[in-house]
Amino acid sequence: MPEYKLVYFNGRGRAELTRWIFAYGGIPYIDERYEKEEWPEKKKTISGGKLPVLIVDGKTLPQSLAIARFAAKKAGIVPDDDLEAAYCDALADTLFELIPEAYKILMSEKSEEEKKKLLREEFFPDKVYPITTRLEKRFEEKQWFVADKITWADLAIGMVIGAMLRVDSESFDKFPALVAHVNKVQDLPKIKEWLEKRPKTKF
Amino acid sequence: MPEYKLVYFNGRGRAELTRWIFAYGGIPYIDERYEKEEWPEKKKTISGGKLPVLIVDGKTLPQSLAIARFAAKKAGIVPDDDLEAAYCDALADTLFELIPEAYKILMSEKSEEEKKKLLREEFFPDKVYPITTRLEKRFEEKQWFVADKITWADLAIGMVIGAMLRVDSESFDKFPALVAHVNKVQDLPKIKEWLEKRPKTKF
Repeated sequence: MPEYKLVYFNGRGRAELTRWIFAYGGIPYIDERYEKEEWPEKKKTISGGKLPVLIVDGKTLPQSLAIARFAAKKAGIVPDDDLEAAYCDALADTLFELIPEAYKILMSEKSEEEKKKLLREEFFPDKVYPITTRLEKRFEEKQWFVADKITWADLAIGMVIGAMLRVDSESFDKFPALVAHVNKVQDLPKIKEWLEKRPKTKF
Repeated sequence: MPEYKLVYFNGRGRAELTRWIFAYGGIPYIDERYEKEEWPEKKKTISGGKLPVLIVDGKTLPQSLAIARFAAKKAGIVPDDDLEAAYCDALADTLFELIPEAYKILMSEKSEEEKKKLLREEFFPDKVYPITTRLEKRFEEKQWFVADKITWADLAIGMVIGAMLRVDSESFDKFPALVAHVNKVQDLPKIKEWLEKRPKTKF
């Protein structure tokens, strides 16, 4: 098996989905984490100068979703059907577009109360609910996001929507089928194990 | 063969790569284009409410790069090797991140001279040259972006970097191998034919 080294800041963010995928697939990797203060120095050593990267036997692969999709192939959770695979890709893109917008609010200097107000009055209704409304409808009928087995799209839902539930679960009360799906994914033994042992970072 | 309908605004932007891929693969599709004025009405008919979408036998696939990757599989220009496929994915992500930033400048109310100044003093050096510098090095040695045959990453380079060359070719004089690669891609007979027959829009 090749040596995998996943390099990211000491946080979850855009690397966390790949960590879930590796955990789910039981694929060993080096989980290298930089502190923000180290980054200006470390940046020079990273081809392309952006994180995350996955280093595969010394070759550097950038872009969080290219990395996650690659890991998902290795874990056997990319559909064989081209259109089903494309639906997973599209959902991962759509969910990852939310990350920088959520961080902009959560990492801001605002008070916790102001952040909650922004999330509840703008971010959730404008950006998130159009997506969760469609997912809710899907999980009222289906066991998994596509076809009839788990794919990396389910892990992406568990990771991204799960993070929002941790921030403000009440705001998702109207999506019970989706919340149940997030819980189902987080209760998968390999994922549960990862959630218990992962480093305790805020985001 | 399934019926493909690609829906986007009447412009190039985030749909154009898929048009190149379909052209390269000789895959027939309906190239449906909306005018901006029609959009508020049409938006209600599009699942997810964002363009582009690819409608495959009535099923709607969103997200420009999920669409392009799907089309590329149908055209036979996605590498079989997982890591090579991931390099194509990563490059497409990296190039497409440039599109909204370029549009923000090009579509602004600024004068042509101010736009050129912004491109030359900020956008190109800060955002584009780190990428084109790596691509230049690659094309000094290699015929194609990965492996030894064309992939959709080469079409993405031809499309995105080609658009920048049209805006300001002088600014890319220091990347002769990359410019030659863009020209090589644009001279592929199927691509050339598309470039000649495509609707004349500004972007």
